[in-house]
Amino acid sequence: MPLQNRFEALDLAGEVGEDVVESPPMRSHRKRQLAPRFQTTSDKKEIRVIIVGDFLLGGTEGPICKLDPHHRELCSLPGAQIRDITPQPRALNRLLPTADLPDSSMTPRKKLQGLVAATITPMTPDGQVNLLVIRQYVDYLVSKQNVKSVFVNGTTGEGLSLSIQERKRLAEEWVCQGKDKLDHVIIQVGALSLPESQELARHAAAIGASGIAVIAPFFFKPTNKDELIAFLEKVASEAPAVPFYYYHIPPLTGVKIRIEELLDGIKERIPSFQGVKFSSTDLLDLAQCINKNKREQFEFLYGVDEQLLSALAIGADGAVGSTYNYLGGKTNLMLQAFAKPDLALARKYQFLTGEFLNFVIKLGTVVSS
Amino acid sequence: MPLQNRFEALDLAGEVGEDVVESPPMRSHRKRQLAPRFQTTSDKKEIRVIIVGDFLLGGTEGPICKLDPHHRELCSLPGAQIRDITPQPRALNRLLPTADLPDSSMTPRKKLQGLVAATITPMTPDGQVNLLVIRQYVDYLVSKQNVKSVFVNGTTGEGLSLSIQERKRLAEEWVCQGKDKLDHVIIQVGALSLPESQELARHAAAIGASGIAVIAPFFFKPTNKDELIAFLEKVASEAPAVPFYYYHIPPLTGVKIRIEELLDGIKERIPSFQGVKFSSTDLLDLAQCINKNKREQFEFLYGVDEQLLSALAIGADGAVGSTYNYLGGKTNLMLQAFAKPDLALARKYQFLTGEFLNFVIKLGTVVSS
Amino acid sequence: MPLQNRFEALDLAGEVGEDVVESPPMRSHRKRQLAPRFQTTSDKKEIRVIIVGDFLLGGTEGPICKLDPHHRELCSLPGAQIRDITPQPRALNRLLPTADLPDSSMTPRKKLQGLVAATITPMTPDGQVNLLVIRQYVDYLVSKQNVKSVFVNGTTGEGLSLSIQERKRLAEEWVCQGKDKLDHVIIQVGALSLPESQELARHAAAIGASGIAVIAPFFFKPTNKDELIAFLEKVASEAPAVPFYYYHIPPLTGVKIRIEELLDGIKERIPSFQGVKFSSTDLLDLAQCINKNKREQFEFLYGVDEQLLSALAIGADGAVGSTYNYLGGKTNLMLQAFAKPDLALARKYQFLTGEFLNFVIKLGTVVSS
Amino acid sequence: MPLQNRFEALDLAGEVGEDVVESPPMRSHRKRQLAPRFQTTSDKKEIRVIIVGDFLLGGTEGPICKLDPHHRELCSLPGAQIRDITPQPRALNRLLPTADLPDSSMTPRKKLQGLVAATITPMTPDGQVNLLVIRQYVDYLVSKQNVKSVFVNGTTGEGLSLSIQERKRLAEEWVCQGKDKLDHVIIQVGALSLPESQELARHAAAIGASGIAVIAPFFFKPTNKDELIAFLEKVASEAPAVPFYYYHIPPLTGVKIRIEELLDGIKERIPSFQGVKFSSTDLLDLAQCINKNKREQFEFLYGVDEQLLSALAIGADGAVGSTYNYLGGKTNLMLQAFAKPDLALARKYQFLTGEFLNFVIKLGTVVSS
Repeated sequence: MPLQNRFEALDLAGEVGEDVVESPPMRSHRKRQLAPRFQTTSDKKEIRVIIVGDFLLGGTEGPICKLDPHHRELCSLPGAQIRDITPQPRALNRLLPTADLPDSSMTPRKKLQGLVAATITPMTPDGQVNLLVIRQYVDYLVSKQNVKSVFVNGTTGEGLSLSIQERKRLAEEWVCQGKDKLDHVIIQVGALSLPESQELARHAAAIGASGIAVIAPFFFKPTNKDELIAFLEKVASEAPAVPFYYYHIPPLTGVKIRIEELLDGIKERIPSFQGVKFSSTDLLDLAQCINKNKREQFEFLYGVDEQLLSALAIGADGAVGSTYNYLGGKTNLMLQAFAKPDLALARKYQFLTGEFLNFVIKLGTVVSS
Repeated sequence: MPLQNRFEALDLAGEVGEDVVESPPMRSHRKRQLAPRFQTTSDKKEIRVIIVGDFLLGGTEGPICKLDPHHRELCSLPGAQIRDITPQPRALNRLLPTADLPDSSMTPRKKLQGLVAATITPMTPDGQVNLLVIRQYVDYLVSKQNVKSVFVNGTTGEGLSLSIQERKRLAEEWVCQGKDKLDHVIIQVGALSLPESQELARHAAAIGASGIAVIAPFFFKPTNKDELIAFLEKVASEAPAVPFYYYHIPPLTGVKIRIEELLDGIKERIPSFQGVKFSSTDLLDLAQCINKNKREQFEFLYGVDEQLLSALAIGADGAVGSTYNYLGGKTNLMLQAFAKPDLALARKYQFLTGEFLNFVIKLGTVVSS
Repeated sequence: MPLQNRFEALDLAGEVGEDVVESPPMRSHRKRQLAPRFQTTSDKKEIRVIIVGDFLLGGTEGPICKLDPHHRELCSLPGAQIRDITPQPRALNRLLPTADLPDSSMTPRKKLQGLVAATITPMTPDGQVNLLVIRQYVDYLVSKQNVKSVFVNGTTGEGLSLSIQERKRLAEEWVCQGKDKLDHVIIQVGALSLPESQELARHAAAIGASGIAVIAPFFFKPTNKDELIAFLEKVASEAPAVPFYYYHIPPLTGVKIRIEELLDGIKERIPSFQGVKFSSTDLLDLAQCINKNKREQFEFLYGVDEQLLSALAIGADGAVGSTYNYLGGKTNLMLQAFAKPDLALARKYQFLTGEFLNFVIKLGTVVSS
Repeated sequence: MPLQNRFEALDLAGEVGEDVVESPPMRSHRKRQLAPRFQTTSDKKEIRVIIVGDFLLGGTEGPICKLDPHHRELCSLPGAQIRDITPQPRALNRLLPTADLPDSSMTPRKKLQGLVAATITPMTPDGQVNLLVIRQYVDYLVSKQNVKSVFVNGTTGEGLSLSIQERKRLAEEWVCQGKDKLDHVIIQVGALSLPESQELARHAAAIGASGIAVIAPFFFKPTNKDELIAFLEKVASEAPAVPFYYYHIPPLTGVKIRIEELLDGIKERIPSFQGVKFSSTDLLDLAQCINKNKREQFEFLYGVDEQLLSALAIGADGAVGSTYNYLGGKTNLMLQAFAKPDLALARKYQFLTGEFLNFVIKLGTVVSS
């Protein structure tokens, strides 16, 4: 069975063991002909991989892992036991009292670097956001993938397709469950509506998020730096104590303002500015940003997973991406190899990731097994 | 002064007289260097023109009349007396009791044809939606432009940049003020979030809108007919008794699914399907749609204002556009000339409109004087 | 057999009779699974249709009738009897003595209007340009399609994929065979290399072409009017007595400079400037061109066949396109209906053409039977 | 004077000294307001820099160093003394006898790696190709930039805008002058016309070129691997003993077929296949190509100069680009730093190059002083 072999080829000296899920298999609530369940020949255990896609895989702008967000029933979390969830009361959907929240402005801030998982949004079979599995999700990322930071309500998480209420509840749950376990919980609060984006920023501050990120408006697109800054500034000023990240993803937004230009003088406009999620293949822009802003200590997190090694070569601090949900362990090994530096070994890991993504690209859909 | 001359050139035998506003000039709440106030030499009266742009003028995909929606303070209505408005209580923001509403399903439906104004969204100086001027707006359209149908919360109205609450209030006000004055009040209820779009559809039905229109999702874009229909169907089914229009505007959404293909069998999926706002230059597609769907009596309203005559030639029923806010009178004359048919005269009107739009395109901004 | 029915549906009261070829069927030199030979049920005669495509059909920029020009063996002329051709000496490939040629500058020039066929380039089975069938081709166009003008070496004719020598020979043969039969023979002389384009322009003048047309350079693209004019001017000045046409086809060249802007003052730069082959869907641009240049009497020939009726509505003089090779007769009937004006009838013809093109678009390849 | 400072900032420990030209300044045959002549403050000597651009600088698809090829008078070679050249007979324009040429198939082939200069095409003031300066050009590249391989008639060299004869003469001159001085002379023989491309391939073989490269046809674009291979194969087979390179530059050609897919089985179709000039930012594609084709020992030369370090990180063999004409020395230092590996130092060089290119991008034109 070719799928099996392709997948096993990805297994570099057996380290994929952490992907094995021994718990009872998830009772999938829907059938999908393109998402076969398969086993490795070696251990006969089921391996579950969820590809959510950053919609940038392969350098194409189109979605390659079609999430079909309009059906709102596609995503499921590794290990989620949906059977138990449905009858439960959805009591979690409350606004957390601010008093209980960690005060992010007090503790010395840890630099955001390494891997950040762009989280998927789990759904119940009836199309509701499934908050009950976030706790499990946190534990899985930390223990199985060694990933301790998350980026919530971004592209992978389909944040733009959720309602404001859904986004708030998800943010609350991640902040709450990530307490003492995660290093950073970044909430993507960008929206087409400025007042809604501001509302989400205030909310993220209130619940104690480690940072907020804002995607550029993409219906009426800003066409120059000033227009873009004007929007970002109005959102950032609603959460002045929360580190602010610009979420740069031109293939999806069509907003191509260069980051090097954007950063010039940005601290005067947005004092809380902290860095960029850089999901573009313009590495000249990234390199110049890194070089010019050393004094500012901005954080540059690369968002095109399959090119991460190339971004590291020019000095990226880390990465935000969907693949770190399930390839976080392997990518951490690549980061270690790069740090030595052992470029040949790092390249092997990058090749494996690329091979896997190529496989997924050809499959053209969600792999779930 | 060249601006003056260009504008006067548009005046075909003096019919622009209806644009003259004799009331005290609007106290503009902001300065804009590119929006000069100018007078005609003939009568020394101030002429006020608001160009809101369909973002399709000139066949380019980029906005030519930059609305800068992020500032939320740009648009102002012809004749709005902003001075009076600010102190007033915003008591209008209530949900209208359904009992008072016209029952659209009972009265014999009037065909949607002729001109439909894509309404702008008036704002107060402090960035709130200005509901108080909608009544005036309705009267102006009917009496000055002879336009009796409106398309609310679309691209021109910046619907996608408003919050759900703002969209609801605007819809309510248009339906309420349009009662007994307007023939059709179509509410654009499309949104990136399916539940929000459904909520808006239910709301539009509850307040008695004549129709709803839905733009295709444009962040995660549907890539084939089935995906698009699946989304539209879920919205339409929330307002099953309200005529449904698909809002086709590929230059802004990037969704290029051909309408001819979309319409094939659509009544089985969306029984309330009634027509298309067709904002594309693919006139082959439009012609085939019109030809094939005669039996269905769908309504095809063209949305590229400067090419309307070309769309009429192949059988379009009417037009939805921003220019009908201020060039409705002239365009109605074009429709009459076309109906005779006096193509040479119709062409003259289309040329004038084109000349005017070209002028605006070169200006590249909102003209407000 | 559905193909049959679809084709017959195009037959409006039997006028397609002129497409029936009674001569022995062409022995196709290659097999093509997607190019089925079919018969009408009514008369059991073979009908031969060659779709060459303007690569604009359907409003898409991609080729829909894949010509596969790299194989150089695809096109064949209606009625060509290839069996007879191969053994013949290729004696025609000589430069015609200038003395024999019609002196285009002496006779009063006939306005270029109505239909112009964008000719295909016939090839022999071994990949040579088949000059021997041009005579037949001329007779076919005149007698069967009532088309008396041609546009040679354009997109349809794959001029850019031919060598300079091949282009010259084709031009010679069309001018020679068209003498006393055709009204206008326009030679497309644009090339990526300026010296080669100039050479082709001098050659076209020497052989007595009625006009030359030049496509914009499309590798290094001119980005403003001045750059474009500079190139066109240098070509035109090599053939100063020959009417000059700009070949505007932005979907293929990527050169989007508006024609309205281009024409402003063009006579001072290019005294021989005569008109535009306008293959764009920007009808605002076309309308303004027509309106503003009445005094100049420029000729505007529309090049998006399936939208011709819409271009006529705003005043186009005629059309250049590939479909007039085989739908010239029908399109002439549309022109007549439009002239009355009987728009309803004209629309029927446009619908038929559209239906036929849609059929071909779905087939996605050359139809040859 | 800011320009000065920006340029000096590029001077890392004085190594740009080799760019200083002490000979009498070139008498420029045209004025250009955007190409200021400037001096460094340090030595008051004139520095001459020619930016020719790969039209990919900055990751944009548009030309940033506008060559205005239609004027055919822009480029001039560093050190060219145009005064002396004009009156000279153009006796060099002969076809070199094959007997004199190096037999590339006999000597053991040196791997193509490191830096390859994409040569510009020098012109005389009257628009002729200036063959007389090629000898100087070769010496300059070898002695001043330590660059020993060239890529002739590519994008930088405006090969597609030259006539076939001009391309042949240039190729001859480079092969002739490069004998015993250069390691590799690669001739780009791609053309829109297949017969012309084949003719250029035969010619390149006859004169003893080290390799030929072929760009994808970009007017009628191949849309899948088979179409592309079919074209390449027909060119390659005309020069079966000459190493063949595919010139992949999707931003200019619009041909986006992935190289990984193209290479699969390519040796069976094109036995002389040797490698790829890879001018794309799809580093996933590049990485997979490198990884999968180790056994084949294909050569991968990266063509986006400002991202070279990122391509080296994933295993590129070298680079072909326009900047190596004048930044070859510096880029060689980057290659050395990368080989150690001293990534921090390599990054410094890449930053300098990026800074310089950014400067040029903002200037938006040819810098010549």
